[in-house]
Amino acid sequence: MPGATDQTLRPFLWRAERLYPETELVSRGHDGLTRYTYTEYADRVKQLASALRATGVTAGDRVATLCWNHHRHFELYFAVTSMGAQLHTINPLLPTDHISHIIDDAGDRVVFVDPSLLETVTEAVQTTETDTITQFVTMGDASNASSLDPIEEYDSYLDAHDPAFEWPALAESTPAGMCYTSGTTGKPKGVEYTHQMLWSHTMTTQSPQGIPIDDTDVVLPVVPMFHVNAWGMPFSATAGGAKQVFPGPAPEPAELASLIENEAVTIAAGVPTVWLGLQEYMTHTAVDLSALERVVIGGSAAPESMIDWFDGHGVEVLHAWGMTEMAPIGTVSHTKAGLEDANATAKRAKQGLAVPGLEFRVVDDTGEEVPWDGEQFGELWVRGPWVTTEYFANERATADTFEDGWLKTGDVVTVDEDGYLEIVDRIKDVIKSGGEWISSVELENAIMGHDGVEEATVVGVADDRWQERPIAFVVAVASTPHDELTAELEASLKEQFPKWWVPDAFEYIDAVPKTATGKFAKRVLRAEYDSTDAFDASHSEEAIPEE
Amino acid sequence: MPGATDQTLRPFLWRAERLYPETELVSRGHDGLTRYTYTEYADRVKQLASALRATGVTAGDRVATLCWNHHRHFELYFAVTSMGAQLHTINPLLPTDHISHIIDDAGDRVVFVDPSLLETVTEAVQTTETDTITQFVTMGDASNASSLDPIEEYDSYLDAHDPAFEWPALAESTPAGMCYTSGTTGKPKGVEYTHQMLWSHTMTTQSPQGIPIDDTDVVLPVVPMFHVNAWGMPFSATAGGAKQVFPGPAPEPAELASLIENEAVTIAAGVPTVWLGLQEYMTHTAVDLSALERVVIGGSAAPESMIDWFDGHGVEVLHAWGMTEMAPIGTVSHTKAGLEDANATAKRAKQGLAVPGLEFRVVDDTGEEVPWDGEQFGELWVRGPWVTTEYFANERATADTFEDGWLKTGDVVTVDEDGYLEIVDRIKDVIKSGGEWISSVELENAIMGHDGVEEATVVGVADDRWQERPIAFVVAVASTPHDELTAELEASLKEQFPKWWVPDAFEYIDAVPKTATGKFAKRVLRAEYDSTDAFDASHSEEAIPEE
Repeated sequence: MPGATDQTLRPFLWRAERLYPETELVSRGHDGLTRYTYTEYADRVKQLASALRATGVTAGDRVATLCWNHHRHFELYFAVTSMGAQLHTINPLLPTDHISHIIDDAGDRVVFVDPSLLETVTEAVQTTETDTITQFVTMGDASNASSLDPIEEYDSYLDAHDPAFEWPALAESTPAGMCYTSGTTGKPKGVEYTHQMLWSHTMTTQSPQGIPIDDTDVVLPVVPMFHVNAWGMPFSATAGGAKQVFPGPAPEPAELASLIENEAVTIAAGVPTVWLGLQEYMTHTAVDLSALERVVIGGSAAPESMIDWFDGHGVEVLHAWGMTEMAPIGTVSHTKAGLEDANATAKRAKQGLAVPGLEFRVVDDTGEEVPWDGEQFGELWVRGPWVTTEYFANERATADTFEDGWLKTGDVVTVDEDGYLEIVDRIKDVIKSGGEWISSVELENAIMGHDGVEEATVVGVADDRWQERPIAFVVAVASTPHDELTAELEASLKEQFPKWWVPDAFEYIDAVPKTATGKFAKRVLRAEYDSTDAFDASHSEEAIPEE
Repeated sequence: MPGATDQTLRPFLWRAERLYPETELVSRGHDGLTRYTYTEYADRVKQLASALRATGVTAGDRVATLCWNHHRHFELYFAVTSMGAQLHTINPLLPTDHISHIIDDAGDRVVFVDPSLLETVTEAVQTTETDTITQFVTMGDASNASSLDPIEEYDSYLDAHDPAFEWPALAESTPAGMCYTSGTTGKPKGVEYTHQMLWSHTMTTQSPQGIPIDDTDVVLPVVPMFHVNAWGMPFSATAGGAKQVFPGPAPEPAELASLIENEAVTIAAGVPTVWLGLQEYMTHTAVDLSALERVVIGGSAAPESMIDWFDGHGVEVLHAWGMTEMAPIGTVSHTKAGLEDANATAKRAKQGLAVPGLEFRVVDDTGEEVPWDGEQFGELWVRGPWVTTEYFANERATADTFEDGWLKTGDVVTVDEDGYLEIVDRIKDVIKSGGEWISSVELENAIMGHDGVEEATVVGVADDRWQERPIAFVVAVASTPHDELTAELEASLKEQFPKWWVPDAFEYIDAVPKTATGKFAKRVLRAEYDSTDAFDASHSEEAIPEE
């Protein structure tokens, strides 16, 4: 059987260490910047692997992190994976009971935790059902954390162990990473990444229509390293031999601006909120963005105005879309050759073009593919060498989400004639009326565009004749008479959409109920509407679970 | 066991077909240019797969080609591989008995052949020992080829079959390609490429420090498509959605110039000889190279003067090195950040920097790694996901060439402080003297730089005390007295090299014996010198086998 060497992450580290020994890694901490080279990095990674082995970590064990973006976290990225163990990055912003569930579910052996997150971890491990953790390591002073036991301080932990370490030969099927998706319903679900999946993801993002990074780049991942490996950038930056800048815990716009200026960052990545912060900051403080060439925006849709703003500063926006289940990149919104015209911003505000190696289909209720006309929509299914085909130890969720190797993303999308994919809704929110689909998100955006509306959401409610019909829940501006507003909204929506998209009713409420992470809690409204003819405009303030 | 979809070539075709349906493929033939789109290409690829299936080709069968660079050859690239069969590209320039051996060894089922190569194939199949071929297909008029049976003409063959074809799901371990290396000794040896290997190669060449190609590119592979899949460019160009231009059989400089100008080629690839032809052509005919951005040069070393010449025309040279055994790219000589100074050309004339995912080591006689100082040299060993770990059905050659997953390349190299690899010799030609290695190539270049020398080669001959000692064989310019020349050469070499590098003898010969492909036949000289005290300056004109 012909073959070749397995696809593992270690050669990326080898390349940076040998070809770019003097290139810097910079990390922001409470006490200023730490700065060292790939040579020192590779040495510390080896010593960390020695320490983990001395702690009893062996192939297949999971090592958890609850950490922000810093060099120690990055040291774990290559040490844990290349020794054959599995790096399990946990989102510290999740509710504590979710963190407990995640630690239980994964059976983590060692937990690395930032000092500012010691309390969260202490609380979380008090309610875990199992007791798999044999070591805690804190990224700073451990004196405040007496109840976590045994606990060591990271740098002492490293220093106490052998600086030499022989990397084992690993099969590419070895699990290397793990991330939980907070998903749409129920408890977080685990996604495992093998070496091969992370290798594939690194390589496809390195292609010209991905997010290519080379040794001329200085990379600043603002996206947390617990969000699907900071979208994979620390791996691709290492493969490309780039300087890397880690912004530390909770960087403020002023701190990001300072890093961008002083370290001559060429490419940064983060969610739209981060860049809104920078935009706002720059209304009163000058920031030199001349080194900055590209900004990767993902997590949620980048507004056109943000793309234009960066254009105005000579910075190219790479609008990207992905999911935890796909490690995470699926599309990047590059401007295709020949489309560099007035529509370019509108195109780039879409989720973009599939990166090489990915395949997708957009299917309607009957499983038929919908045409690529930018109008008709269906659920997006994807597959590829970095797209998982299962959830960890969760047969029911696996059966619900995967089919014939395809991941059913739950996103409802259109694809235009040029192949640009645009998310128009979530499958659970799309309204199925008379065999056709209505996008709740498009209706919401149209309604919220009206002057008399403060906030609004649209949900599908059961209907005997049409299966479902849209109902709008509107928070009106205080002074607006509701009857007039309803008439105006109906007239306006009729102009913009097919008649049958117009909601059957406009209900006025005091506020749109939201989940813990700020998303519209549509399920609550739908349930309340279905259970009562006289809809109650107020609703309980108790915690609403994530949908 | 976590996992994802297998790495196969088909998604690259899917991407070009769906995202770049109108992008063109252009092919030069005897009757002018053929021009169609990826849409038509994908349709023809499906129909070709139907035809092959109707011919009885099934998973695991090998389909041979003896073809130049044209659209029909490229149709075979995706049809054969994506249906689960194996594309076996044969070099038609090999001696006929080698082609016979290759067809026998591979057990090819169908042979596709260009009209100009019908005679070669007819002759080759007359001496094959086995009879596995069930169908010949000629890329043009078949009327001249009565002895090949059964034979069909390509376009009729396609048209006769179902345009619909359902691609099968393939494992990434499925063999997709095959190429024979003429190697150094003995008969050609087969190298098989799995889908995973070709996927990996495509992806690493698409990285920024490889040979990245996107939809703004127009790609002209002058390197033959039988030379390791034209260095993989047709695959990466498809993944990137580029326009592709195929130059047809034996393109002259004028024809290449015309394609570059008229099709606005942005990136072209070929051996130095091709570009010498273009340089020479441009001494008397103006060619507009304004669209051309990059030229990939490989196969043999690119002279510094050629790199400078292209620089002068605003074209970046990507000097690349590889081997059949590595599908083929291993290094590309990009200028590293910070090295854009006066030395840049000298650096770029080296074989370059390892692409991401590759690992290499340079080892001396004792298996120890030599330091990266640009001076000390050893044999280059490589490994990676696109580097084979065996020869096809050849246990002896496999045992000789591979060790612990490493490919022992047979190339003797230095690596400098910046990680640039430079080939200084072949392991069989390097002279092992007193435990140290002497580069025969460096001595040859120094000797040939002397005014009185027309041509020269240096070989190691057995020595009781030192194991081997260098002997120079010199073709002197007619009027030069040999004694004087020897004295001058000795003096000059002593200045440039350690004293023990200077050859023990300078033998004057009429011509350097050469192999069929024009390489110095050092083995002949070594054998003749060893067997006679009085060296015979003449030598037989009979065919000398490849070393």
